Amino acid sequence: MKIEAVDFFYLAMPQITTEADGSQDALLVRVAAGGFVGWGECEASPLVSIAAFVCPMSHGVCRPVGASVLGQALDSPADIARIARRVAYDSMDLLQAPHTFSGVEMALWDLLGKARQEPVWRLLGYRRSGKKLAYASQLFGKTPQQTLDAARAARAAGFTAVKFGWGPIGQAGAALDAEHFAAAREGLGPDALLLVDVGQIWNEDVDAAAARLPALEAAGAVWLEEPFHTAALAAYGQLAQRSRKVKLAGGEGAHNIAMARHLIDYGGVGFIQIDCGRIGGIGPAKAVADIAAARGVTFVNHTFTSHLALSASLQPYAGLLDHRICEYPFAPKPLARELTVNHLARDAAGEIAAPDAPGLGIGIDLEALRGYLQRVEIKVNGQTLYATPPLA
Amino acid sequence: MKIEAVDFFYLAMPQITTEADGSQDALLVRVAAGGFVGWGECEASPLVSIAAFVCPMSHGVCRPVGASVLGQALDSPADIARIARRVAYDSMDLLQAPHTFSGVEMALWDLLGKARQEPVWRLLGYRRSGKKLAYASQLFGKTPQQTLDAARAARAAGFTAVKFGWGPIGQAGAALDAEHFAAAREGLGPDALLLVDVGQIWNEDVDAAAARLPALEAAGAVWLEEPFHTAALAAYGQLAQRSRKVKLAGGEGAHNIAMARHLIDYGGVGFIQIDCGRIGGIGPAKAVADIAAARGVTFVNHTFTSHLALSASLQPYAGLLDHRICEYPFAPKPLARELTVNHLARDAAGEIAAPDAPGLGIGIDLEALRGYLQRVEIKVNGQTLYATPPLA
Repeated sequence: MKIEAVDFFYLAMPQITTEADGSQDALLVRVAAGGFVGWGECEASPLVSIAAFVCPMSHGVCRPVGASVLGQALDSPADIARIARRVAYDSMDLLQAPHTFSGVEMALWDLLGKARQEPVWRLLGYRRSGKKLAYASQLFGKTPQQTLDAARAARAAGFTAVKFGWGPIGQAGAALDAEHFAAAREGLGPDALLLVDVGQIWNEDVDAAAARLPALEAAGAVWLEEPFHTAALAAYGQLAQRSRKVKLAGGEGAHNIAMARHLIDYGGVGFIQIDCGRIGGIGPAKAVADIAAARGVTFVNHTFTSHLALSASLQPYAGLLDHRICEYPFAPKPLARELTVNHLARDAAGEIAAPDAPGLGIGIDLEALRGYLQRVEIKVNGQTLYATPPLA
Repeated sequence: MKIEAVDFFYLAMPQITTEADGSQDALLVRVAAGGFVGWGECEASPLVSIAAFVCPMSHGVCRPVGASVLGQALDSPADIARIARRVAYDSMDLLQAPHTFSGVEMALWDLLGKARQEPVWRLLGYRRSGKKLAYASQLFGKTPQQTLDAARAARAAGFTAVKFGWGPIGQAGAALDAEHFAAAREGLGPDALLLVDVGQIWNEDVDAAAARLPALEAAGAVWLEEPFHTAALAAYGQLAQRSRKVKLAGGEGAHNIAMARHLIDYGGVGFIQIDCGRIGGIGPAKAVADIAAARGVTFVNHTFTSHLALSASLQPYAGLLDHRICEYPFAPKPLARELTVNHLARDAAGEIAAPDAPGLGIGIDLEALRGYLQRVEIKVNGQTLYATPPLA
């Protein structure tokens, strides 16, 4: 097969707020080859990622992503890896390139799986798709009482693993943060998994993060996620040394394999969280899963958007049966729900698995998307480099 | 002062080729505040960097760069640092943001320097602007004979430090590479500084890079630049251990301070090369220069474009008198030469220094730019987010 077309669809809610909710917009990618169609999704900033696909070349190693993809042969996983290497080298000076290519790469796997009538996880070499315990991802309340209520609601919705994130943590001192951690534990009950995500709030301040460790340990938190910015390897490494029971989690900002590997090797994380919509797609995420498994580190997906992205994010570690938990978008915006025809529903045990269907096993609801579609036009010197294509 | 306007001008040569010559296009940034105008330049992919300034918000930590800049107070270096922190946090999920902000940040320093009638290096705390030996940056020839000729030409043009890069190195075996290194040394004569840049050709293959070390050492190369991709810290660290005399150089791809610091601490580079048009501007580059000085590592600019970018890239280490060499665009395209009214000419000793004039000390030639200006238009839902503004 030859890659004939790559189309981008920028979708957005009518109102975008400043909350840290990544499901407010989406960049859907459609690839056509050999009579098949594959779908993928880039994480964040649709307009910029579109521009990185269509921009004019700056020089030999700052080419648009499209130049490395369109017209290429697509007959095997090795072709996807070859195209990925080409993007990495020919677009090395185009910073946005990995985010753009991530959605394209997912779509290539989806398409190849459909052509071969195989689920992507099988193309990756796994024999089965193991079940993962879905954890609900939600924000901390503004007050400890709100956090308590939110924890009870998640538990009532059947979740036995819950992540709280962002909100007031790090803003008003360790004492108030401790109240939130305790409230979360109280609302979840003693047996549920509590995960805490602080969204890079301490930048590189190891002492500020360490000051929260006793309260996190008292609340029985399994991990502390993103205490620092993604590149702050030394800060991660120092905090990991200072923590007795609470492990560090991070990696969602990794946009190549080496960044994730270094978070393990230098940063000492116990959980490596990979967003397939940022790291360059499913192939690099699988490479990180292999590294994690070899190092005794647990691989976890990072997913806050649609079930297309969710399916993609499960594939890289579908067959790593010891890597048991997965992030599950708890209350995404309607756009993220309506984007797909089918969903990965939790079973009675609260578990999900990457589908057995060909490709990513997720259908796109074109009709539902019409209302969210943003009409984009990019022109240089009067020539249209991109105009939102028809959905059908 | 309040930041009233930020305008981007995408400039390009009539023909863009696949050679690794970053002077083929440019993204010029103009900032207006308090009746003053400052100029800066983003490195690479103008269309994508413009999009990252004007794109709609995706969510709270994926905001356009413009949202953190426009309307902000600008009265001191502390204001520039504050705006930079805001961009880093509010655009943490927008990968292109550091490249976009780099040119803006340069322009903020230029403007502040003009308002205070001080050169930027003085605003950075330096008492004087020391002279740097300009090294000529050029590509290896296709054959060893061409490399020999190019080395002789650079020497004849008065350069006593010359960097050869890219081209055939790494493509056809260590023996041919050794011939090129020897030819470069022969053409330069025994006393000139020889620097070698291989443009990430070995990705993470430490053995392939190590196989070139004996020939590099025999040719008296001062450094081996970018054997691996920017994030390949472990590969850098391993190669640094295996090299006796040839130091490693790298860092041009760093888009934040931590990446550069980790190349020093984990990667073991002897020279840290910073592109102010990528790392987030002059402030982060100064922070890296301080780290380098404290660690006994030499700071070097990375500059392949205009003398506006060259002046900006000299400011962060203008007062580090022991950090003696600087990259000097040897044969940039006419666009890069014509962009500025004045140039940093080499003196009789082949040295240059950051100007004593206010700001960056470089004038922009608006008339000369007209012929290179690319007319860009970006629309979402019929609303124009960006249209190339008038140059005057």
